[in-house]
Amino acid sequence: MEVGFLGLGIMGKAMCMNLLRNGFKVTVWNRTLSKCEELVEHGASIGETPAAVMKKCKYTIAMLSDPSAALAVAFDKDGVLEQMCTGKGYIDMSTVDADTSKKISEVISKKGGYFLEAPVSGSKKPAEDGQLVILAAGDKVLFDEAIPAFNVMGKKSFFLGQIGNGAKMKLVVNMIMGSMMNAFSEGLVLADRSGLSQQTLLDVLELGAIATPMFKMKGPAMIQNNFTPAFPLKHQQKDMRLALALGDENAVSMPVAAAANEEFKKARSMGFGDHDFSAVYETVKTYGHSK
Amino acid sequence: MEVGFLGLGIMGKAMCMNLLRNGFKVTVWNRTLSKCEELVEHGASIGETPAAVMKKCKYTIAMLSDPSAALAVAFDKDGVLEQMCTGKGYIDMSTVDADTSKKISEVISKKGGYFLEAPVSGSKKPAEDGQLVILAAGDKVLFDEAIPAFNVMGKKSFFLGQIGNGAKMKLVVNMIMGSMMNAFSEGLVLADRSGLSQQTLLDVLELGAIATPMFKMKGPAMIQNNFTPAFPLKHQQKDMRLALALGDENAVSMPVAAAANEEFKKARSMGFGDHDFSAVYETVKTYGHSK
Amino acid sequence: MEVGFLGLGIMGKAMCMNLLRNGFKVTVWNRTLSKCEELVEHGASIGETPAAVMKKCKYTIAMLSDPSAALAVAFDKDGVLEQMCTGKGYIDMSTVDADTSKKISEVISKKGGYFLEAPVSGSKKPAEDGQLVILAAGDKVLFDEAIPAFNVMGKKSFFLGQIGNGAKMKLVVNMIMGSMMNAFSEGLVLADRSGLSQQTLLDVLELGAIATPMFKMKGPAMIQNNFTPAFPLKHQQKDMRLALALGDENAVSMPVAAAANEEFKKARSMGFGDHDFSAVYETVKTYGHSK
Amino acid sequence: MEVGFLGLGIMGKAMCMNLLRNGFKVTVWNRTLSKCEELVEHGASIGETPAAVMKKCKYTIAMLSDPSAALAVAFDKDGVLEQMCTGKGYIDMSTVDADTSKKISEVISKKGGYFLEAPVSGSKKPAEDGQLVILAAGDKVLFDEAIPAFNVMGKKSFFLGQIGNGAKMKLVVNMIMGSMMNAFSEGLVLADRSGLSQQTLLDVLELGAIATPMFKMKGPAMIQNNFTPAFPLKHQQKDMRLALALGDENAVSMPVAAAANEEFKKARSMGFGDHDFSAVYETVKTYGHSK
Repeated sequence: MEVGFLGLGIMGKAMCMNLLRNGFKVTVWNRTLSKCEELVEHGASIGETPAAVMKKCKYTIAMLSDPSAALAVAFDKDGVLEQMCTGKGYIDMSTVDADTSKKISEVISKKGGYFLEAPVSGSKKPAEDGQLVILAAGDKVLFDEAIPAFNVMGKKSFFLGQIGNGAKMKLVVNMIMGSMMNAFSEGLVLADRSGLSQQTLLDVLELGAIATPMFKMKGPAMIQNNFTPAFPLKHQQKDMRLALALGDENAVSMPVAAAANEEFKKARSMGFGDHDFSAVYETVKTYGHSK
Repeated sequence: MEVGFLGLGIMGKAMCMNLLRNGFKVTVWNRTLSKCEELVEHGASIGETPAAVMKKCKYTIAMLSDPSAALAVAFDKDGVLEQMCTGKGYIDMSTVDADTSKKISEVISKKGGYFLEAPVSGSKKPAEDGQLVILAAGDKVLFDEAIPAFNVMGKKSFFLGQIGNGAKMKLVVNMIMGSMMNAFSEGLVLADRSGLSQQTLLDVLELGAIATPMFKMKGPAMIQNNFTPAFPLKHQQKDMRLALALGDENAVSMPVAAAANEEFKKARSMGFGDHDFSAVYETVKTYGHSK
Repeated sequence: MEVGFLGLGIMGKAMCMNLLRNGFKVTVWNRTLSKCEELVEHGASIGETPAAVMKKCKYTIAMLSDPSAALAVAFDKDGVLEQMCTGKGYIDMSTVDADTSKKISEVISKKGGYFLEAPVSGSKKPAEDGQLVILAAGDKVLFDEAIPAFNVMGKKSFFLGQIGNGAKMKLVVNMIMGSMMNAFSEGLVLADRSGLSQQTLLDVLELGAIATPMFKMKGPAMIQNNFTPAFPLKHQQKDMRLALALGDENAVSMPVAAAANEEFKKARSMGFGDHDFSAVYETVKTYGHSK
Repeated sequence: MEVGFLGLGIMGKAMCMNLLRNGFKVTVWNRTLSKCEELVEHGASIGETPAAVMKKCKYTIAMLSDPSAALAVAFDKDGVLEQMCTGKGYIDMSTVDADTSKKISEVISKKGGYFLEAPVSGSKKPAEDGQLVILAAGDKVLFDEAIPAFNVMGKKSFFLGQIGNGAKMKLVVNMIMGSMMNAFSEGLVLADRSGLSQQTLLDVLELGAIATPMFKMKGPAMIQNNFTPAFPLKHQQKDMRLALALGDENAVSMPVAAAANEEFKKARSMGFGDHDFSAVYETVKTYGHSK
C-alpha cells in the first residue's frame, strides 16, 4: 500500500520506519528535508512539499509536533489542502486540541476528502517497536482502510467516534501521565532528602499497586540525571495546557493537573524544554541559592 | 512459632489470618474485643490487654491505624511497655511518622527489648493474599528472626537501616499513590465531561506506559460509584499530611502532593473519610449548587 | 464631545452614564437593544449596529465582556470595521488578551484609523463613581484626545506603550485580585470552622498590613452569603485563565494563581458563574455529602 | 508598672523598647544574653533565666520565635513554670498553635497563676511604632490588667475568648498574608517577563481595590531584590504550616494556602529562610539553568 508521511521527528521517523520495514511504499516530507535521508535509504521517496505528497498518494499520514504545525501543514501554501480532493484520505496522528482537529476536518470534507484524527499514546520506544496505542476518531471508512498501516505502527487501535474524541482522549491520558511524573519526581526527591535510597524506592514501587512501566523505564535514568528526550518536556507541558483548557470549557476543576502544569512551566523556564519530560525531576530538586 | 498480634482492623485481621493458616500460634488483642472472635475460630488465643499479650509472647506484632493508636498501645496503662524486657521483640507494622517510631524504639531499648518498625505497602487484598511489601528498619537481628512471619504475610521484605527509614519509605510510597489517585480521578471526570467513555479510558490506560494495578483494580468500581473501603480515605490523607511534614522538615517543596492533600481534605469534609480513598473521585466530580 | 459607546453591561452602562452626566453626546449600542433605554432617558442616541455608531462618531468606545465579544463587535457583519476609516478612533476598554487586541489594532491601522486598548481596573462602584483606573496602550495621539472622556470615567489614566501592554497590565492586576479573593475566602472559612468570629477577623484585617478596600467592601456581604454581582465570577475566571496563558507564553510558573483558577472553575461548575466573583467563598466552604 | 520580658528578637526588642520609653520598669531575658545590653542602656534590668524574671515580676510577657521556644521557656529547667504561683500573670505574645498555648495555660492554672495568650499582628515597623494589633485570649482579668502595657505596644487589643482563639486568629491572618505575598510576587514576575514596568504595576495597585499597606511598603524593596528581614521567611512558612494543620483538624481544604506554603518551602530550600518573607519573590522568579 502506498502512503504519504509528513513529519519525521522522534515519533514520525520511528513510525515511518515501521511502515517501510513492513512493505509499505512511503513518500515522505519533513520541514528540514535532510531528515528524510535515512528514510530514503530504507526505501522511501521524497515529496518536496506536503501538497506534492498529497498529490501522489491516496492516503497521507501526518505526525507533527503541535497544533500550529498541524494547521500550517494543512492550510499553508503548498500545504495538504491544495491537493485534497474526493477519494483522498488524510490521517493526522499529531497531538492537537479538538478545535484544531475540527478545523482541518471541515475543510477536508468540503473538498470531498476523508479525515481521521489518530493521535497515539506511547513515545519513542513503543513507536520504534510498533507498539503504540492509536486513538482514532472521524471517518469510520478511512479508519477501516487504515487498519493495515495502524497494525504495523501500533498494538491496538480504538475508534472513538466523532472528530475531536481522539484528540481529547490523548490529552486526558497525557494529563494523567504528566501528573504522575510529578508525583514520581516528588517521591524521588523526598526519599533522597530524607536519607533513603532512591534505588530502593524504585524496587519497592515495582512490587506494589502503583508499579508502572513508566516508573520502571525512566526511574533509573532520572536518578542519574539522564534526560535524553523520548518525549520532550515542552510538548508534555503543551498537552497539560490543552487538557486544562478542555477542563475549563467543561468547568472541570483539576487542581493536581494545574499544579503539575506549573511545575512543567518552571522546568521550561529553567531551560529543560527540550529534555525528556522526566526532567521535571530537576525542577522538584530545586537549586540552592545560598546556605 | 508463637507471636502476639495487636490490632485487628482491615489489615491486621487479614495478616493475622495468614499467620494462623500457616501454623503460627497467635495471641490476639484488639480494642474492640469482639473482633477477636473470628480469629479465635481459626485457632488464635485472646490477650486481654497489650501488656498481657507481650507477657505471653517472645515476639509481638502490632498493626494499628495511626500514630496516636501506636503510641497508646505502647505507652498507656496495660500497654506493651509494661511487659517489655530483655529478649522480647516488638514489631510495629503500623504506618506512623518517623518521630513516633523513634519514641517507641527508645523506650523499648531502655527496657532491653528489640524493636523493628515494619510498615507495609499494599492494602486489603494483598494483605489477604500474603502479598504485602514489608518495609522494615531498626534491629537487624529481630528482622532476621521475623523473616518466617514476614514470608507468610508478604511477598518481599526490605531491611532499610536505622529506625525511621521504614516509616519514611512507607510515607513516600503512599504520597505518590495519593497523588496518582487524584490524577486518575481528574482524568476520569475530564473524560466523562468531555463526552468520552470512561471504560474506554480505562482500556487505553491499561495498554500504555502508565498502566498500573491500582487503576485496573479500582477503576471499574470508581466509575460505578462503589467505594467500599480497602484503604480508608482518612488514613490516606493522614499519610499525605505526614509525608508533607517530612518534606517540610527537609525543605522539600511538593506542590502536586500538597494539591492532592487538599483534595483529600475536601473529601473528608464531604463525609468520605471512611470510604475507600478512591472516593476522592467524588470530590473531583463536584456538586451542582444551582444551574 | 461626541462619542459612540458599544456595550452596556454592568460596567459599560455605568461608564456611559458618567459621560452623559458630564455633557458628552453619546450614541449607544448594545446587543440587547432594550438595555439602551435607560441611557436614552439620560440623553443618549441609539445606534442600530456597531457600524452605524462608528459611522456617526469620530470616536467610539467599546466595553464588552470578553475576547470573543470584542472580536465579534469588530469583525462581524455590521461591525465596527465596516465603517472604520482615516480620522476615526476606536477605544476598546474591554478586558481581553494581548493577541485579541493586536488583531483588532492591525485591521484598524490598515483602514487608516486610530486604536487604543484601554481596559480598566475597578468594578461596578468605581465605574459608577467615575473612579476607575484606566490602563491604555496603543496610539498616543488617540490617548491624548481621549483624556477628557477618561477623566470623567476614571481617577487616573496610564499610557503603557505598545498595543498589548494595557491588556497585559489588566490581566496581571486581576490575577492578583483573584488569588487574593481565594486567600480571603480560605481565611473566612478557616476562622469560622475553628470557632472564631468572622466579623472579628474582618475587624483585625482592617487594622493591619493587609487591609484592603476589597476586603472591606465585600467581606460583610460574603459572610451573609450575599453575592450580588459587581464583577461576575465567570469573567474573573476568564481573566485568571488569560493571565495563566500569558505566563505560559513567557514560561512564568504561577502555582498560587493556578490553584485559585481551579477554585473559580469549581465555582463555575457549582453554578456560581453569574454571581459576584466573591462567591468562590461558597466553593471553599464545600458541601457535606453525608456525615 | 513592673513587668518581665522574655525574648528580644526583632519583635521582642522593639516591643520592649516601647515599654521602657513609656515608663515601665522592665526586667529582660534572652537566650543570647548579649542582646539584653541595648535594653539595659534604656533602663531595663537583666534576669538570668526565665524563672528569675518570673520570680521578680508580677507580670511577665514572652515574645518567642515558635512553639518549641515557647514550650522550652515555659517547661525547661529554670523556666517560667518553676516560679509560677498564685497572683502571677504570664502573657505569651509568641505566635504558636492552639495546642501549645493550651499546654502552657493548663500548667499555669494548676499552679494558681493567670495566663493570657496574646499573639500580635504586625511586624517590625508597627512593633517599633507601637502600632501592633493584639489578639488576646484566655484570662479576662489578666487581659484587663495588661491594657496599659498593650496600649503602648499596640494600636488595638482584641479579647477573643477562650485559650486558643488568639493563636488561631493570628494563624488565619498570617495565612492570608502569606498567600497574598505569593500572589503579589507572581504578579510582579509576570509583569516583568511580559514586558511591563514593575513600578507601574505598583502604582496601579495602589489606586485600586486591592491596594494594601504591605504592597506599598514592600513592593519597592522587592523589585530591587532587597529582602532585609522584618519578618523572617522561615517564621512565615511555619505559620502557613500551622494554619494548614488547623484546617486539617477541621477538614477545611485550602488549596491556595497549600500552594503558597510549598512556595515558601521552596524558598527555604534555596536558602532564603532568614530573609524577609517577601523573598519568596526570588523563588517565583526561578533560575535559568541554561537557555
